[in-house]
Amino acid sequence: MDGLSKKVYMELALPTKEDAVSSQERILRALRSEFGQVRIPCRILRILYPLCEQAEWKLTATLAFNGQEWEITKLEAGDASGRHYGVCADLGSTTVIVQLVNCNTGEILSQESVYNEQIAFGTDILSRIFYAKDNAEHLEEIRLATIRSFQKAFRAIQEKTGVAPEDYAAMTIAGNMTMMHFLIGMDAFCIFSAPYAVRADRPDFLRAEELGFPFAGYVYCYPAKANYVGGDIISGMIATGLPDKEEIGVFLDVGTNGELVVGNRDFLICGAGAAGPALEGGSVKTGMTAVAGAVQYVKLDGQEFILDVIGGDEPRGICGSGIVDLTAELFLHGWVDIRGRLVPEASDKIRTVEGEYAVEYAPGLYFYQSDLDEFLRTKAAAGTMVEYMMNLIGVPMDAIGEFMIAGAFGTHINKESAVMIGMYPDMERERLILPGNTSLKGAYEMLLHRENLKRVDRIIEQMEYVQFGEVEQFIHLMDGARALPHTDIERYPSVKKRLKELGTWK
Amino acid sequence: MDGLSKKVYMELALPTKEDAVSSQERILRALRSEFGQVRIPCRILRILYPLCEQAEWKLTATLAFNGQEWEITKLEAGDASGRHYGVCADLGSTTVIVQLVNCNTGEILSQESVYNEQIAFGTDILSRIFYAKDNAEHLEEIRLATIRSFQKAFRAIQEKTGVAPEDYAAMTIAGNMTMMHFLIGMDAFCIFSAPYAVRADRPDFLRAEELGFPFAGYVYCYPAKANYVGGDIISGMIATGLPDKEEIGVFLDVGTNGELVVGNRDFLICGAGAAGPALEGGSVKTGMTAVAGAVQYVKLDGQEFILDVIGGDEPRGICGSGIVDLTAELFLHGWVDIRGRLVPEASDKIRTVEGEYAVEYAPGLYFYQSDLDEFLRTKAAAGTMVEYMMNLIGVPMDAIGEFMIAGAFGTHINKESAVMIGMYPDMERERLILPGNTSLKGAYEMLLHRENLKRVDRIIEQMEYVQFGEVEQFIHLMDGARALPHTDIERYPSVKKRLKELGTWK
Repeated sequence: MDGLSKKVYMELALPTKEDAVSSQERILRALRSEFGQVRIPCRILRILYPLCEQAEWKLTATLAFNGQEWEITKLEAGDASGRHYGVCADLGSTTVIVQLVNCNTGEILSQESVYNEQIAFGTDILSRIFYAKDNAEHLEEIRLATIRSFQKAFRAIQEKTGVAPEDYAAMTIAGNMTMMHFLIGMDAFCIFSAPYAVRADRPDFLRAEELGFPFAGYVYCYPAKANYVGGDIISGMIATGLPDKEEIGVFLDVGTNGELVVGNRDFLICGAGAAGPALEGGSVKTGMTAVAGAVQYVKLDGQEFILDVIGGDEPRGICGSGIVDLTAELFLHGWVDIRGRLVPEASDKIRTVEGEYAVEYAPGLYFYQSDLDEFLRTKAAAGTMVEYMMNLIGVPMDAIGEFMIAGAFGTHINKESAVMIGMYPDMERERLILPGNTSLKGAYEMLLHRENLKRVDRIIEQMEYVQFGEVEQFIHLMDGARALPHTDIERYPSVKKRLKELGTWK
Repeated sequence: MDGLSKKVYMELALPTKEDAVSSQERILRALRSEFGQVRIPCRILRILYPLCEQAEWKLTATLAFNGQEWEITKLEAGDASGRHYGVCADLGSTTVIVQLVNCNTGEILSQESVYNEQIAFGTDILSRIFYAKDNAEHLEEIRLATIRSFQKAFRAIQEKTGVAPEDYAAMTIAGNMTMMHFLIGMDAFCIFSAPYAVRADRPDFLRAEELGFPFAGYVYCYPAKANYVGGDIISGMIATGLPDKEEIGVFLDVGTNGELVVGNRDFLICGAGAAGPALEGGSVKTGMTAVAGAVQYVKLDGQEFILDVIGGDEPRGICGSGIVDLTAELFLHGWVDIRGRLVPEASDKIRTVEGEYAVEYAPGLYFYQSDLDEFLRTKAAAGTMVEYMMNLIGVPMDAIGEFMIAGAFGTHINKESAVMIGMYPDMERERLILPGNTSLKGAYEMLLHRENLKRVDRIIEQMEYVQFGEVEQFIHLMDGARALPHTDIERYPSVKKRLKELGTWK
């Protein structure tokens, strides 16, 4: 591993009259050939004595890279090189996920997922932004809530592994632009208001102590490309390796928003749209995140729903992958038509509830027409972003090597269902990739492979940002994409075939 | 000035839709061509908004160099580039001298000299070292006393100039090895005990806050060459320019110890000896530092002493330059013989006091035979160091371009008297240089000229250290040097001539 930190065990020659260099130099000269001129801060200078003598000059130095040079952040007696820990994190607006990593082996020792305590100031990002807007105290509350979320994860990790935050040698964080602003303590209103010039988009290496983290060293914060294409997406690029591949890849991250990158080693185009919440179950009335009680898979057997509920409990709601499945099954069996409308004649499970059609997918749990509308709008937006970009670069869909849907949503999705409703293009299934939480994975990769710093620079430089909001053609494209699976069914031969088999296709 | 800090006034373009880069990048791109990739810490990122907007993007950045890169340590609205302050300091074991400098012009705005509060733990360095030895609490007391001394000087400077420490953009400190150890908070016993391997001899740039100074940015601490050739001497090299000259120069710093450098742009040899205290009046019974009441110049007119007392008051004691004068006058008029013994027949002012001869140089103030012995031992040590080194390099004394005696002692000394007693060689008087406090001057030069960093590296690398204690020949040489002006009077033709004129020479 050649990451952002190192633990180097040194057995140094004891000082003698002939070799009476300073403790500082004795250590530095052992490190110089590999690490250049290493910085030793006051804190470490102060403990050189009696530590070095007591340890008989058998020492372990923790080195942290700060973007420019290495700094000794810890000095221990004896061989402590095996205890080399780092943390990587995905700072999401809802969830903060932290992994404790053995930085010598890359092994993930623990993963903790905690709610982002910013939620106390609004479940959606905009509420939080307005709460903090031009109010330094409120901004500080949100910053501290962010830090508390991390601390909570750190504590949980410590309870499980015994590794305290003081032992972290390095940390990497990926998150969107707003999350990074709040983490640092910067007003984030700028992200969403003209002229859309943010405070900082390349935090890179910040001192952990200054951020509020309880360890010596540096925190690498992934830089952003644009206001809606944040560090989480750049991290995703590192995680998936899309920018290094020969074949053109599509990377769609569906989280709170939808972000898209299309490209390969020769070009990278990115864009973003409000494509997210519905896909995560956010704007579906009985929607919920993928926790115990959430319906995650759905089959329609005649008139009966066969449900797979997380934790095996009674269903309490439905999560993203369940919604995809449900929509696909309803469509496949003719309970929803190609225009995305519930067909009440298809089942008595579809009835009028609170003034609109709804299907009772579990006892007392309804999926409404308005939920479906919202969901299809979202999937249309995501699909249209992809289509628009492919048109832009003049490349047909079948030239795509890999089509990736990242995000917590993406990891559990049923590929066939997703193709059925037109979320995915109808292509070879092995090229439909579910890379999972690529924001977290990219943070992990950065922690362990310093060379990724150069790749990030290149990605940021190479990437072109397309503002979909300004594209006239976009609305027109989206209209076609709202149908199931698409107005142009010929793009979905496997779906057409399946519908015909079931007799749904007339 | 191209020093360790910069204040850069920038009138930046206001963000527009077409130019919507981040505040961070807006600032960085204005600095990149001159300063490379500048680091912006959390603290500054947090104040970008609303500062930048309120200032309408007319901003002044304070940049501090940390040895590797520039960091923005302060950001102010409007043009504050004129308020560019730095401090340089000579950290002496007795006195801490701090200068406030206008870093744009080099003007010294204020100079404060305070007692080093370490004195509370011992007037001599060794007492302090033993006090702190293997006792972390005592060491911390001494460290804090050091910081308090600086703070006292800072306060005095603020009272006189209105410039607060928070406004310092950079600081440089020169001091000997022990002072640097105490400043940082490192046990200093190592300096004087085998195997003489110290804790740290190249502190270089340390974060001001970590040291305990109340400003953001870095403190440059001059590195040392050897245990007794500390940062104050390296600073002296920068101040005098000796290592860049074609002619061979001799640099003798007489403070608490005596340090010597001989060399030019081709070679540098250094050494040190316990040559100091007596020259500063330290081991003379009525000796005192050069403050009000100290006899600083002496003439002998027949049987009467004509004294110049600092402040014009009644004499309370005698300082270094007074002792040199007194010794020279006594010798010149035959009151002291060539072997350095008081001649009671010469005057009834020489009488037996407390069991030894003593001369009453002022009413009730005596200069004892034992004082004279100690003083001559010291001058012999200093003189012998020079002689030994000249022998070592095989260069005659008359090949010396400049003979410099630095230190507080050196600034006020009467050159003729110093030659008379053999402290200086008998060479052209304009080549006898009194460069003053070169430790402070070198700190000043470093503050204003960053290129000196490279010069320091070169000096440290080039310098050869000679351990006088191990030289057998040394004792023999010193014997000769204890005479007035020297056993070999032929080396002092001008002294011989003067003695003959006065009839003292028989």
